[in-house]
Amino acid sequence: MFDTILNHRTIRKYKIDPIPEQILQYILEAGIRASTTGNMQLYSIISTTDEKIKEELAPCHFNQPMVKEAPVVLTFCADFNRFNKWCRLNKAEPGYDNFLSFMTAAIDALLVAQNVCVAAEDAGLGICYLGTTTYMAGKIIEVLDLPEGVVPVTTVTLGYPDESPELTDRLPLEAVVHQDKYSDYSDSDIEKHYREKELITTYQEFVKENNKETLAQVFTDVRYKKDDNVLFSSKLLDILKHQGFMNHHK
Amino acid sequence: MFDTILNHRTIRKYKIDPIPEQILQYILEAGIRASTTGNMQLYSIISTTDEKIKEELAPCHFNQPMVKEAPVVLTFCADFNRFNKWCRLNKAEPGYDNFLSFMTAAIDALLVAQNVCVAAEDAGLGICYLGTTTYMAGKIIEVLDLPEGVVPVTTVTLGYPDESPELTDRLPLEAVVHQDKYSDYSDSDIEKHYREKELITTYQEFVKENNKETLAQVFTDVRYKKDDNVLFSSKLLDILKHQGFMNHHK
Repeated sequence: MFDTILNHRTIRKYKIDPIPEQILQYILEAGIRASTTGNMQLYSIISTTDEKIKEELAPCHFNQPMVKEAPVVLTFCADFNRFNKWCRLNKAEPGYDNFLSFMTAAIDALLVAQNVCVAAEDAGLGICYLGTTTYMAGKIIEVLDLPEGVVPVTTVTLGYPDESPELTDRLPLEAVVHQDKYSDYSDSDIEKHYREKELITTYQEFVKENNKETLAQVFTDVRYKKDDNVLFSSKLLDILKHQGFMNHHK
Repeated sequence: MFDTILNHRTIRKYKIDPIPEQILQYILEAGIRASTTGNMQLYSIISTTDEKIKEELAPCHFNQPMVKEAPVVLTFCADFNRFNKWCRLNKAEPGYDNFLSFMTAAIDALLVAQNVCVAAEDAGLGICYLGTTTYMAGKIIEVLDLPEGVVPVTTVTLGYPDESPELTDRLPLEAVVHQDKYSDYSDSDIEKHYREKELITTYQEFVKENNKETLAQVFTDVRYKKDDNVLFSSKLLDILKHQGFMNHHK
C-alpha cells in the first residue's frame, strides 16, 4: 500500500480499454469508507462514461484531452440535497444553507475523492485531478443537472495508464511540516526549500519557453494569474449563493 | 491496501505509546505524494506532540478527549504564505488573496490529509478526523501561530488503537453514485436509501435518548443545529477575510 501511495503519478494518457463495472464498483465501495462528518456522507459522485456527456464536460475543463479520452470521469460534489430531503421527510428542519455547511460537505467529498484515487491506483488504474472544477463549477452544474445544495469540488479522470511518467518532485518534508506550532519562513528558509525545485531542467525550460526571468513568474504571470483568480473567485461565490449555501451571509 | 481502506474505523482511544519519529516521517512522506494543484503544495501540516500545546488545542475541539490523549495531533492547513513568500523573493507578484485560491489550497490540504490517514492506518495506527477545525479556525490560528495566508481546514488525531470498534454503516453505493448525470431523489428513493440506517439499534437509541421522534431530528435539533452553523459560518468567513483570502469580495 505504501508502494501504491509512494508511486503515485498523475496519468494523462489512457488506454482505450474500459474499466470493468465490477472494478469501478469495488473502487467506489472502498472510496466511501472514508471518514465523513457525523457519518452524514455529504457528497455525491457522478460517474460519467457517456461519450456525449464527456464531450459537454470537456470545455468545463478547458478542453484538457483527458476528459474525452479517459473511460470514466468522476465528479465529486459537496451534496446537502440528499440529506436535506431526508430531514424534510422526517419532520426535521435542516439548517444547512450556509457557508460552514458547504465547507463540511466539501471536506467530505474531498476525503472520498482521495480514497477513491488510492484504491484506483492500487487496482492498477491511473488518475488525474482536474483543478478546473472550482473555476467552472457553474457550467458543470448545468451539464450534470446538479440541483440546489450540490456543488462540484473536484474531478478525477480514470483509466488504464498509457504512459509512465517520472515521479514528480516535492518540496523536502521539512518545508511543509511544522513541529508543534507554525514556524514562519525566513528568506533563507524559502531559498533552501525551493532550491532543488528551481534546478530541475524541466522547470528551467518552462522559464525560457515563457520568456520569464524566474520560475515563480511562470506561476504568477502565466499559469495562475491574478485576474483569472479574481474572476473565477467571484463566479464561485455566486455559485455557492445560487446553490443555496450563502443564505445567511452578504 | 484495499483491506486497509475497507477496514477503516475511526479510533478515539489510543495506547499511551508514542509514535516512533521514523514511522511518523514515513507516513508524512507518503502523504505528500498526493496530487496538488500545479505541484504548488499549498498546504502545511502542523504536527503537535507537546503536551502543553495539545492542552491549548483541546478547547478548540470542544474538549474532545482525543486531542490530549493522542500522541500526535496533525492540523492540516491551506497555506499560501510559503508560496507567496517564494514568489516575492523571485520578482513575481502573487495574486492569491481571493476565495478561489483559498479553495485551491484547502483542496490540496484535504487530499494530503486523507493520504496521510490511509498511510497511517496501513502502518497500524488509528486516526480520528475533527470536524471542529472549521468551527474554531480562529482559535486554532492563535494557538498554532498561523500567519496570514494560512487557514486550518481539518485536524487528525493519531495513535496506536486501544479499541476495536465495529465498522460504521454507510448508505448503499447507489445512494451516493450517479450514472453520467445527477438523478435527483424522489421521496421513495430517500426512504429506500436511508431505511437500513434508520433500523440500526444504536441510532434508534440516539433518538430515544434525545427525546426525538426521528433520527433526522437528532441531526437538525441536537448535533448540527442551524444557529450553530450560522454562527460558525460567519466566523469562518471572517477568518478567511482576516487571513487575506477575501480581498476582492464583499
